[in-house]
Amino acid sequence: MTILHGIGVSPGAVCGRVVRLPDRATEPPAGPPPDDREAEAARIAAAAAAVAAELRARASCHPDVQPILEAAAMMAEDPALRQEAERLVREHGLPAARAVWETANRYREQLVAAGGYLAARAIDLDDVRDRLVAALLGSAGPDDSGAEQPYILAARDIGPADTVALRRDLVLGIVIEQGSPTSHTAILARALGIPAVVACSGALDLPEGELVTLDGDAGTVATGPDLAAPSTPRRPRRLVGPGRTADGVRIPLLANLDTLEEVEHAVAAGAEGVGLLRTELLFLHRGTEPGVAEQAATYLAIADRFPGRPVVIRTLDIGADKQVPYLPELEEPNPALGLRGLRLAREVRPELLDRQLEAIGRAAARTEADLRVMAPMVAVPEEAAWFAARARAYGLRTVGVMVEVPAAALAAGRLLREVDFVSIGTNDLAQYAFAAERTSGRLARLNDPWQPALLELIRLVGEAGTAAGRPVGVCGEAAADPALAAVLVGLGATSLSMAPAVLPEVGDLLARVTLDQCRAAAEAARAAADPQEARARASAVLGLGP
Amino acid sequence: MTILHGIGVSPGAVCGRVVRLPDRATEPPAGPPPDDREAEAARIAAAAAAVAAELRARASCHPDVQPILEAAAMMAEDPALRQEAERLVREHGLPAARAVWETANRYREQLVAAGGYLAARAIDLDDVRDRLVAALLGSAGPDDSGAEQPYILAARDIGPADTVALRRDLVLGIVIEQGSPTSHTAILARALGIPAVVACSGALDLPEGELVTLDGDAGTVATGPDLAAPSTPRRPRRLVGPGRTADGVRIPLLANLDTLEEVEHAVAAGAEGVGLLRTELLFLHRGTEPGVAEQAATYLAIADRFPGRPVVIRTLDIGADKQVPYLPELEEPNPALGLRGLRLAREVRPELLDRQLEAIGRAAARTEADLRVMAPMVAVPEEAAWFAARARAYGLRTVGVMVEVPAAALAAGRLLREVDFVSIGTNDLAQYAFAAERTSGRLARLNDPWQPALLELIRLVGEAGTAAGRPVGVCGEAAADPALAAVLVGLGATSLSMAPAVLPEVGDLLARVTLDQCRAAAEAARAAADPQEARARASAVLGLGP
Repeated sequence: MTILHGIGVSPGAVCGRVVRLPDRATEPPAGPPPDDREAEAARIAAAAAAVAAELRARASCHPDVQPILEAAAMMAEDPALRQEAERLVREHGLPAARAVWETANRYREQLVAAGGYLAARAIDLDDVRDRLVAALLGSAGPDDSGAEQPYILAARDIGPADTVALRRDLVLGIVIEQGSPTSHTAILARALGIPAVVACSGALDLPEGELVTLDGDAGTVATGPDLAAPSTPRRPRRLVGPGRTADGVRIPLLANLDTLEEVEHAVAAGAEGVGLLRTELLFLHRGTEPGVAEQAATYLAIADRFPGRPVVIRTLDIGADKQVPYLPELEEPNPALGLRGLRLAREVRPELLDRQLEAIGRAAARTEADLRVMAPMVAVPEEAAWFAARARAYGLRTVGVMVEVPAAALAAGRLLREVDFVSIGTNDLAQYAFAAERTSGRLARLNDPWQPALLELIRLVGEAGTAAGRPVGVCGEAAADPALAAVLVGLGATSLSMAPAVLPEVGDLLARVTLDQCRAAAEAARAAADPQEARARASAVLGLGP
Repeated sequence: MTILHGIGVSPGAVCGRVVRLPDRATEPPAGPPPDDREAEAARIAAAAAAVAAELRARASCHPDVQPILEAAAMMAEDPALRQEAERLVREHGLPAARAVWETANRYREQLVAAGGYLAARAIDLDDVRDRLVAALLGSAGPDDSGAEQPYILAARDIGPADTVALRRDLVLGIVIEQGSPTSHTAILARALGIPAVVACSGALDLPEGELVTLDGDAGTVATGPDLAAPSTPRRPRRLVGPGRTADGVRIPLLANLDTLEEVEHAVAAGAEGVGLLRTELLFLHRGTEPGVAEQAATYLAIADRFPGRPVVIRTLDIGADKQVPYLPELEEPNPALGLRGLRLAREVRPELLDRQLEAIGRAAARTEADLRVMAPMVAVPEEAAWFAARARAYGLRTVGVMVEVPAAALAAGRLLREVDFVSIGTNDLAQYAFAAERTSGRLARLNDPWQPALLELIRLVGEAGTAAGRPVGVCGEAAADPALAAVLVGLGATSLSMAPAVLPEVGDLLARVTLDQCRAAAEAARAAADPQEARARASAVLGLGP
């Protein structure tokens, strides 16, 4: 038996046969020349329309990836790309697939030569190119495994478009060689409730059809069967009763949401409220800023699904990595370290924040939900005070800030003098604390939420919350790992917010452990030398398997 | 009397009259057409050569900016830019200055449209354009004030090329509207010993010829004279005796160096050794990696100037922001959070590190200096262990790591089980702890080294060092601020390393205060709400002015 080790990013153990995602499209041949060049050229526009429509249809399935898939759809329909490919067919007699291939690769070179952010978009173009080529050749797309029995998917990496297209009735688990705990693939796997292991070296060497057991908690893939692990896909479950520990300590279990459409999933999963409502999708991919009335209507519609429950709206968090036409263009060498979140509001466009706060204030006045607001990218107490004053001026009674910048964790006590609560965003907090890009597969080991130094920062916030008698939520992906959820409670978290699909599992575990066990697990994990040891120690204290 | 407030980045108070740096070149006229188009076109190549030569001459004055000025020189000589401008003269009859202006602006648009890193280079192109235009018009360059009496320079911002060209016998002090404590201008002002205030709103409104008092410690510029403040430029001084507090606690005062050429400044200033020898300049701007013998010879020549003294060599710290032809091209959305420093060695090219360690090992075997080595960008104990094992395999006895990633500060105790010492890089530590680009003027308030959360991180490292009985150096720019230097000692720093020019001033202050005063100042600063309060409280405890 061999065991491959990666990073578990979506919990659960499953047993099944390996199906490998076909590798990317191979280079289409440069001949033979088409008989009717005009007809062949006309196929390109049709293929582009079909690929774009398919990407847009998938985008509607999961709003987490909507901006990404929308951008890919626009790339597929790019008129310059299409016209140049048509020209190659008409003037040089290339087959359409070959013409698209060559044109896209020339674009790709330009992107790579431009460096920086543009170069990182080359991988998106590759995906679009492969879809166009597959459409023109009539071959299977990059994500069509053709399997009809439940299977465990092995791949080098899976793009968001492929992940959302996975059939939940067939895919038991996912193992990929690349990726990181905060990559889109990982977030989506959790949202879909599919156990997953990323950054798993050797995944591509697993033979097709091999029987393996994948453990999304331990981050392992072992060859051979495990009779205890299910071999049929998991069905969505519902959170049983409110979140509480075995000794009765209440820990509200809340949902992370992006859009109105997602609310029903959260309600169906039994979420006790919304711990993080991101508002970026309201603002992206449009020519003008959404008006106060439009915003207020959206916020109100979401809040009204949770009467008497907390619904925490995070104000806009965009920066140089996600630009919109109605804001000045930012030029920054490192957008993640630049004018994003609250900084954009303070330094560039305070009236944008004012209008959003006005809209949230209007919704708060009309809903029966306990509507709260919080600001992203706060680093120092003075910023928290600035935000709180503005939010309160719009009638908002419960005001908080995200703790996702290490300095904010270190100053949590002072932040809590300015605001009513804090909410820890573990993904960005890890990115900054380890100075490691959260989407980088090569630095995934640093972004592991079990890193002891990250737990130490969370402990500082938890202690400050306890001392101040104020709530400390966790709304990063870390809350979606049941063992880690218990550790977070032990570190002082008073509520946890996560993808709706994982709420039942986290609720189950919390109901089985006492607060003292959570604290002991936290202490054991924090004192560990590395993430593996932290997880093993905490699991032992919590009575979970090794 | 009006007082402008900014951030003091180079200490000392001076009194003098304001001279404003002329604004950028204005748009040259599109006519009249030259009589002899060929002769006019030929002037462009001559101007490009002159501007490039001038930039290279300045580069040799200060190695801190050599890579930047070398890149600017290459831009000035870019054949595509020259040929296009020549074409505009020949075919459209534009004057040469206008042709260069239009061509450079078209390039600029392309850079900005490319976004990301390339867009950030637009400001460099502007500087090159203005120099070329000035050369062709025979007008003064952007940095020629024409003043003949000592003066205080006021400007929007000053590029590295302008800063190195400042006449130390004329420039009393510098105040700029933009910039940040870790910008090149700030670093150079400290290195040149010129008091400076950055991020100072209103600096451009100071009337030319106004008498002002600039305080580089307090970060203020007040209109009106201060008889106590000198009105002649400061002369370089020499550190008096070894660094120690008034009660005799030894704090070695060391130099930060980039190259062999800088060593003499450090020796002349009385440095007790080298706390940070950066090695990037050995590796940048060349087609092939420097050989082991070449590296060893350079390290040995530097070390031999400090027999019996510590000389700490930092291994190569480059990443996607500084690429070299002999390493694979990296494409990262945020280079500062990517594969840089030790990560590049671990993930991409370990043999590059091995050859550098072999060279350092050879120098260590031959010198009488106490040669030490340390790794940049270490985040977790496991990386420190990996580096230490490699370094020791090359015979290096004293091995350390930089603490510049917040997670490393939080794990300092564990790091010190793996290595013999740590050295805190306050510039990057602040950048990551506050998630704020260190070169951003708009986020300069977050990169202030007096930020209490930064002091808290430094305290954690100092405590870990005391507990382990191992040295904790500080080699960031924070050590160059005398009052802050005392606070760093109070937080547990056992040595300080800085630009040679500021060693005497830091030595003077340390000799006047006891360790208990340093500790009390540290405690007062750490408990402050913001950087201004931290500085004021510490200064009061240390018996310095308000």
